[in-house]
Amino acid sequence: MAPEHPDLVIRNGLLVTASETFHSDLLIRAGKISAVGQGINADGAVEIDARGLLVMPGGIDSHVHLQYPQGPHRVVSSDDWLTGTVAAAHGGTTTVIDFVEALPDQTWMEAFEARLAEAAPQAVIDYGFHMAFNRVDDRSLREVKSIIEAGISSFKIYMAYEGIRLEDDGILRALEQLKACGALPLVHAENHALIRYLTRVHHAAGHTEVRWHPHAHPAAGEAEATYRLLTLAAQLDIPVHIAHVSAAQVVDVMHAFRARGQQVSGEVCPQHLLLTEVLYDQPDELAMRYVMAPPLRSAADNAALWQALHEGLLDCVVTDHCPFTLAQKRGARRTPEFRRMPDGSVQAMEPESPWAERTPSFDQVPGGVPGIETRLPLLYHFGVRTGRLSLPRVVECTSTAVARRFGLYPRKGSLMPGADADLVLLDPERSITLSATTLHQNCDYTPFEGWTVTGWPRMVLSRGEVIVRDGQFIGRPGRGEYLKRAPYAFATHC
Amino acid sequence: MAPEHPDLVIRNGLLVTASETFHSDLLIRAGKISAVGQGINADGAVEIDARGLLVMPGGIDSHVHLQYPQGPHRVVSSDDWLTGTVAAAHGGTTTVIDFVEALPDQTWMEAFEARLAEAAPQAVIDYGFHMAFNRVDDRSLREVKSIIEAGISSFKIYMAYEGIRLEDDGILRALEQLKACGALPLVHAENHALIRYLTRVHHAAGHTEVRWHPHAHPAAGEAEATYRLLTLAAQLDIPVHIAHVSAAQVVDVMHAFRARGQQVSGEVCPQHLLLTEVLYDQPDELAMRYVMAPPLRSAADNAALWQALHEGLLDCVVTDHCPFTLAQKRGARRTPEFRRMPDGSVQAMEPESPWAERTPSFDQVPGGVPGIETRLPLLYHFGVRTGRLSLPRVVECTSTAVARRFGLYPRKGSLMPGADADLVLLDPERSITLSATTLHQNCDYTPFEGWTVTGWPRMVLSRGEVIVRDGQFIGRPGRGEYLKRAPYAFATHC
Amino acid sequence: MAPEHPDLVIRNGLLVTASETFHSDLLIRAGKISAVGQGINADGAVEIDARGLLVMPGGIDSHVHLQYPQGPHRVVSSDDWLTGTVAAAHGGTTTVIDFVEALPDQTWMEAFEARLAEAAPQAVIDYGFHMAFNRVDDRSLREVKSIIEAGISSFKIYMAYEGIRLEDDGILRALEQLKACGALPLVHAENHALIRYLTRVHHAAGHTEVRWHPHAHPAAGEAEATYRLLTLAAQLDIPVHIAHVSAAQVVDVMHAFRARGQQVSGEVCPQHLLLTEVLYDQPDELAMRYVMAPPLRSAADNAALWQALHEGLLDCVVTDHCPFTLAQKRGARRTPEFRRMPDGSVQAMEPESPWAERTPSFDQVPGGVPGIETRLPLLYHFGVRTGRLSLPRVVECTSTAVARRFGLYPRKGSLMPGADADLVLLDPERSITLSATTLHQNCDYTPFEGWTVTGWPRMVLSRGEVIVRDGQFIGRPGRGEYLKRAPYAFATHC
Amino acid sequence: MAPEHPDLVIRNGLLVTASETFHSDLLIRAGKISAVGQGINADGAVEIDARGLLVMPGGIDSHVHLQYPQGPHRVVSSDDWLTGTVAAAHGGTTTVIDFVEALPDQTWMEAFEARLAEAAPQAVIDYGFHMAFNRVDDRSLREVKSIIEAGISSFKIYMAYEGIRLEDDGILRALEQLKACGALPLVHAENHALIRYLTRVHHAAGHTEVRWHPHAHPAAGEAEATYRLLTLAAQLDIPVHIAHVSAAQVVDVMHAFRARGQQVSGEVCPQHLLLTEVLYDQPDELAMRYVMAPPLRSAADNAALWQALHEGLLDCVVTDHCPFTLAQKRGARRTPEFRRMPDGSVQAMEPESPWAERTPSFDQVPGGVPGIETRLPLLYHFGVRTGRLSLPRVVECTSTAVARRFGLYPRKGSLMPGADADLVLLDPERSITLSATTLHQNCDYTPFEGWTVTGWPRMVLSRGEVIVRDGQFIGRPGRGEYLKRAPYAFATHC
Repeated sequence: MAPEHPDLVIRNGLLVTASETFHSDLLIRAGKISAVGQGINADGAVEIDARGLLVMPGGIDSHVHLQYPQGPHRVVSSDDWLTGTVAAAHGGTTTVIDFVEALPDQTWMEAFEARLAEAAPQAVIDYGFHMAFNRVDDRSLREVKSIIEAGISSFKIYMAYEGIRLEDDGILRALEQLKACGALPLVHAENHALIRYLTRVHHAAGHTEVRWHPHAHPAAGEAEATYRLLTLAAQLDIPVHIAHVSAAQVVDVMHAFRARGQQVSGEVCPQHLLLTEVLYDQPDELAMRYVMAPPLRSAADNAALWQALHEGLLDCVVTDHCPFTLAQKRGARRTPEFRRMPDGSVQAMEPESPWAERTPSFDQVPGGVPGIETRLPLLYHFGVRTGRLSLPRVVECTSTAVARRFGLYPRKGSLMPGADADLVLLDPERSITLSATTLHQNCDYTPFEGWTVTGWPRMVLSRGEVIVRDGQFIGRPGRGEYLKRAPYAFATHC
Repeated sequence: MAPEHPDLVIRNGLLVTASETFHSDLLIRAGKISAVGQGINADGAVEIDARGLLVMPGGIDSHVHLQYPQGPHRVVSSDDWLTGTVAAAHGGTTTVIDFVEALPDQTWMEAFEARLAEAAPQAVIDYGFHMAFNRVDDRSLREVKSIIEAGISSFKIYMAYEGIRLEDDGILRALEQLKACGALPLVHAENHALIRYLTRVHHAAGHTEVRWHPHAHPAAGEAEATYRLLTLAAQLDIPVHIAHVSAAQVVDVMHAFRARGQQVSGEVCPQHLLLTEVLYDQPDELAMRYVMAPPLRSAADNAALWQALHEGLLDCVVTDHCPFTLAQKRGARRTPEFRRMPDGSVQAMEPESPWAERTPSFDQVPGGVPGIETRLPLLYHFGVRTGRLSLPRVVECTSTAVARRFGLYPRKGSLMPGADADLVLLDPERSITLSATTLHQNCDYTPFEGWTVTGWPRMVLSRGEVIVRDGQFIGRPGRGEYLKRAPYAFATHC
Repeated sequence: MAPEHPDLVIRNGLLVTASETFHSDLLIRAGKISAVGQGINADGAVEIDARGLLVMPGGIDSHVHLQYPQGPHRVVSSDDWLTGTVAAAHGGTTTVIDFVEALPDQTWMEAFEARLAEAAPQAVIDYGFHMAFNRVDDRSLREVKSIIEAGISSFKIYMAYEGIRLEDDGILRALEQLKACGALPLVHAENHALIRYLTRVHHAAGHTEVRWHPHAHPAAGEAEATYRLLTLAAQLDIPVHIAHVSAAQVVDVMHAFRARGQQVSGEVCPQHLLLTEVLYDQPDELAMRYVMAPPLRSAADNAALWQALHEGLLDCVVTDHCPFTLAQKRGARRTPEFRRMPDGSVQAMEPESPWAERTPSFDQVPGGVPGIETRLPLLYHFGVRTGRLSLPRVVECTSTAVARRFGLYPRKGSLMPGADADLVLLDPERSITLSATTLHQNCDYTPFEGWTVTGWPRMVLSRGEVIVRDGQFIGRPGRGEYLKRAPYAFATHC
Repeated sequence: MAPEHPDLVIRNGLLVTASETFHSDLLIRAGKISAVGQGINADGAVEIDARGLLVMPGGIDSHVHLQYPQGPHRVVSSDDWLTGTVAAAHGGTTTVIDFVEALPDQTWMEAFEARLAEAAPQAVIDYGFHMAFNRVDDRSLREVKSIIEAGISSFKIYMAYEGIRLEDDGILRALEQLKACGALPLVHAENHALIRYLTRVHHAAGHTEVRWHPHAHPAAGEAEATYRLLTLAAQLDIPVHIAHVSAAQVVDVMHAFRARGQQVSGEVCPQHLLLTEVLYDQPDELAMRYVMAPPLRSAADNAALWQALHEGLLDCVVTDHCPFTLAQKRGARRTPEFRRMPDGSVQAMEPESPWAERTPSFDQVPGGVPGIETRLPLLYHFGVRTGRLSLPRVVECTSTAVARRFGLYPRKGSLMPGADADLVLLDPERSITLSATTLHQNCDYTPFEGWTVTGWPRMVLSRGEVIVRDGQFIGRPGRGEYLKRAPYAFATHC
């Protein structure tokens, strides 16, 4: 009887770890990496020829929002757990970490269980969760421990956004509890009052078009919130992780605190590395595609973020994938208007009463961009091919450092024996022109429409199973496993 | 007939690379790492049980001075190629890079050949050289290319020290030529005029005791020279490597230039991480042991250097091993007064006419400290055990980053298939009390006399051959090979 | 009939302005400076010989708390308008700016009128007020304009302290209104939540002694609040004034924002220049004397503040005079236990029921120190005589810059024709040993007890009237006038 | 018999000092300011009505080059002591400090006497000298003391320029001697080797046009030299003055050293505040007008210099006036081709053999721009009228701070009694269009050709004598006096 999982040998590839590149074969047994070596002798194994390909640990995207009901209207992000994880796999990501946000009438544990129930039948890659620390009361503080025991070892703190944000005193109590339990705070750092104030000022001036969006979210407010958060964290001597750093001034703040010994890691998104605020200076129908928080910044900020990523002042690259269709952005629907199937076909959804005849005010546009599929190719093309990042650095910031920071290492983020055989075989010479019509994200636009990138996955494996081959998804819904994550470890660069 | 090199399998160790730690076996074949994997099946292989041990790439010490005739009196450092490399091996270092300094009547190539002839019959581990760029003229500029072809891809530039230092215009011409040839400048950055001036001032005041040594080498002068060198290098857009960074102000300068995009790496020595200038405030007989340039600095500098090493603002840890015996320090001999044999026995040397009745003026004391044997244990004990550095970071800064920076990667600095099987099996629980009487360095003092460190090599392999086992050197003189080094590659953190 | 105010000529003094020192006579006519010149011919004028004296504009202390009911228990600071202004005059201060804090049931205008009614019959020097912006609602926002018209052109914003503090959104609305009206925000910058949190933590640990006071008010929290405030102010492009800067990190934050063009001035108190937190490390009975917020900091902070004052990164020196007697500090009385009369005699007050048998918890000790009388002598002795500050710089930061910043210039802060003849004739050689028993402040301790300073006022004039001569106060209660202040002007250094 | 100098009263002006503005009369007696006061009664005095005018201390321009033989070809700057000082007077400058540069065969004293002999019969305003510290040997070190006694209390040190520059060891010996004698170093800070190297590189590439001039003088090289100089000065604890700061990076370096307590002042020129390097990107005939060292920089540098001047990080505004006619710039003459007389008429000069058919290589163009006449109007127009500087700050940085820094205070730089009556009566509403044809500088171009500025002197007095009235010069050649300057005093901001 044939084993369920025959051994696999990947031969002749260039293996890339977070610190090295070397030619070697790689043996997979029972879904795990068993050996790396030259001329591995493996009778009966299936052979994969990776000549000319880069063999890298599968990407870990620790900041995604699938099937996410955002804001007071609970507009649902257009990728569900199936389409979103399929798209991720196409782009070389084999693990995602999404969020649990409890409703007022749910305990955190109930919310987690509901979220897990959504994901389990759909996900095609492994997944975990951060818990949104959206309230500070005796009940929630008590729940921290059981949530960690359930495998959620990091907690999202919002410094902005009505309904979920914490004030400084709440942050302090949350940090105190997280420190006591060894869990990691993950922080959305923007000054809430400033956003509200500027939004009000612009509204009063009749400035409701999307071009005013970045004016309500200045980089200074992001730097301020970061300075404040790090001040509080330093008092409690707890490590923190700063979400979606978008501006040079934020990096400066992080560096100043690091120099004083504070443990702080930071993540950056491809959109903040590659796009600028000039894109808001367009008619709403175009500009609304880039509504997100923090918003796009200047070209100087782009450059500073690349430099910080190169130097290790930023540690992780994530996507903050949070797609809404153009109709959703426009305010015409609460749920997406179509459904993309794993085979790429599109299924029409029920019509929904339109909410809006015209684009809503900039602050009413659902915030977020799609990106779960394009992270690694963009980073390879614009990072490695331009000399901004070394190959090991790309693996470090898309996989190994993320795994380590969020308690998935050594199961994930590694090519070394014992790790899950989550792998990307990247063809460094394959050119792809990015387009919403060919990407697998369930969204009718991409911020990178029409861009050609060189470097694309030829094959993607999850726990030893080939799930994408030559652009075809060949896994099955629900094969992804829930990952219980260990409390954080703060390594050198992450 | 038994093969010369039977296969080796190292089982059950915790393997440590520059980015990861994992339990795995490791297979060595023909002196090279052949595979890492779980349960490696290797018939006929010799087995080594590494249970409880850390298996790390052998250390690379890119800054040592063996059999080095220093200064105008050509006082010879007390470790020759045999004793020095034996001591290195005991401490877990399997590769050294030393220096070639041509005499006025030698071409660089002649000097290299002479140096190679010294090393070849003695060295017990592999070795390479940096060339001292001690003159800028048509002949030397022409020689750069052939020196690189001979395997020397980095050039030492001294900004201080009569006879070997270059002025700014010489530095510019040297950097220009090195950039054209793809070679790396390695710079001793101190302001020469300031040292000379302060020495003269202190002499005039009757301040000749060693306690005045640091006053003639202020940190500000080191920072100034670094600022100047980086200014010049930035104009030519050439990467540089700063030798033995000793002060916080120097790190600040390096960071400022990095933030503007300059490629600069830096090295730090254990003595600058662990000792302070308070040691000069002793009678000459004690204080002279710490005469080196740059000198020891303050405790605040120590802390800043650890932080910089942790963050990646410094890249490599080296020793600047340059031992002189107390009699040499005292000025009583040109050559060391005894010879330590590989078996640890000591052979008396011919007497030499004493030069001095008393300690010479601080600027006449031969500069340098022994340290080739103690780097890894000190870094493990004071870095890893105190939480200042992760284990992978120790491997990165003592081996992988050094290999990469100086053109030895992937042959050296790696545990991955294809690399030379240069390995340290470190016992993390073995405690050793450091003492000149038990260390193998040919020097009658160590700056760390009496310190107990926990973490010491249990076994050291060079190209698959066990050369140190349980504190016994079992290799043979001359087994070390000369390493031709490739032109530099500037990776993320080094 | 003799005129009420005969002309006065002050001859032979060394006149000191904010930028110059020169020998000249000075003519006073009708309470105003009429001329400065050599050999002024003034028939019938009273002559004052200032040979050997420095003739300076009278000091302006823009941060004092007289008869101030502090906190929820409304413990009243021990200097009333009579004793406080008499003490100020003795020390060379001829103008004070105090605060109006409306009670919940008062309008701001009612509170101002009540405060004016307290001051008018007592004050012996001129005075003005800042309005505490202690609530943000339609009524208070509407009142801003009429308050400014009443002569109060600066508003105190507390970022900490229950009951009076504003949250970020309140600060933004307040700043918006102040900008619209041309008034200046004066900000107490500390992170409120952090103080509360740390106080709670220390209480929980049984740490209630005064030695824990600085631990609840870390410099980092002051720097954070300053960073936040400047971020918000920069968005609205409104100048701000930072009260009682106590730490190097705060100066760094201010400098960073100045370099980006933000208009920000800052004040520092003698206690933060001269005393350190080591004083808290004493038994409560001694340590409680130094309870204030921000607290005393380190010697390194002292040095940084002097340097910043020298360079112009700080602009004004004020006292934050807020005296409480030892019984009040101890919690035994709400009002001071004695009354010092203008002639120096002491009148016993009615007994009051003690509240406490022992020193209260550190956060219950009334906060503040006496200092209204010692500002100029301390600054002269420790600033000018040590070379830290020039004489003109002392005049600038104690008088001219303060006048300019707070809308009193050119009536106050000047020796030039047209200015009020508020003058100090300082004897640079007169030595005084500071002691609560000889100072005129109505407080039974001084933080500078037993210190001998050289440099003390020989004569003080207010609007041409000699009110202090050779240590005797010769004015009369109620002679001080209320000063209507103009909206701010932001000059080069203030 | 009428006195030679009748008393003068200037009535109704707005007097401006370095710290204040106030309406007052001003009495002049025997060439000195005698009194400032309201309604000064001065029988027999000549009255001047200054209603609507600003009455300011005459400008002091401490960096000019009149009749200056520059470089190896000794091309003579086109303003002699007559035309140069007449032009200065027109622009409101009543004191200049020029330079003495000894020839190889002259002692410094001989060179001073020769220079004095040139100036004495021509100068129409008072003047002093800096001595070029262009050699370090026993003779020159010995001469320092007698040069100071002759009234030269500041010494120029060139870090660049063949023939006059000092190396680091020379700088140290010079600084040591200057400190011993209490004299001030005034430093041209550029890295010499870098200029030479880059010039050679550009020549080798055929880049000889003027557009390459700034590429040979990068801001980084100016910052480097400043960092080095300040490092050396800090070791000797001697104050220094940095000449013509042109770039933001230099200001950053100065600030960093100030924060550590180093006394350093800096000057900036109008051309570096107002013009940018874009001007080099023109045909040589136009671009050569802007050849100077340091060269013009970026608009961002302009902004940073204004900010630094506002904040006090820069202290003085000077012109570095060093005019060459277009024919001289072109290389066609050694001496200027025409002579402008005090009455404005032009006298033709003897023809001179042309040296060049075409513009010389950028490094052969005589360096310098005219500006002695336009400093105050440019600063008033672009500083005060735009809100970048207050009026007192303009007086401080063009007069009072300069006087103080260079030992002329209180004789110069002041409106206070006892000071020389050197005055400018500036009409803040008078508009002038700048043009070489109407300015009095002996140069056939101005870098500000065609610019209209509002604010121009209506009257200029030197020692109580009106020398310019309504655009007419009415003084006489040779009336200027040589000023013996006292050793430096380092005041708060200068």
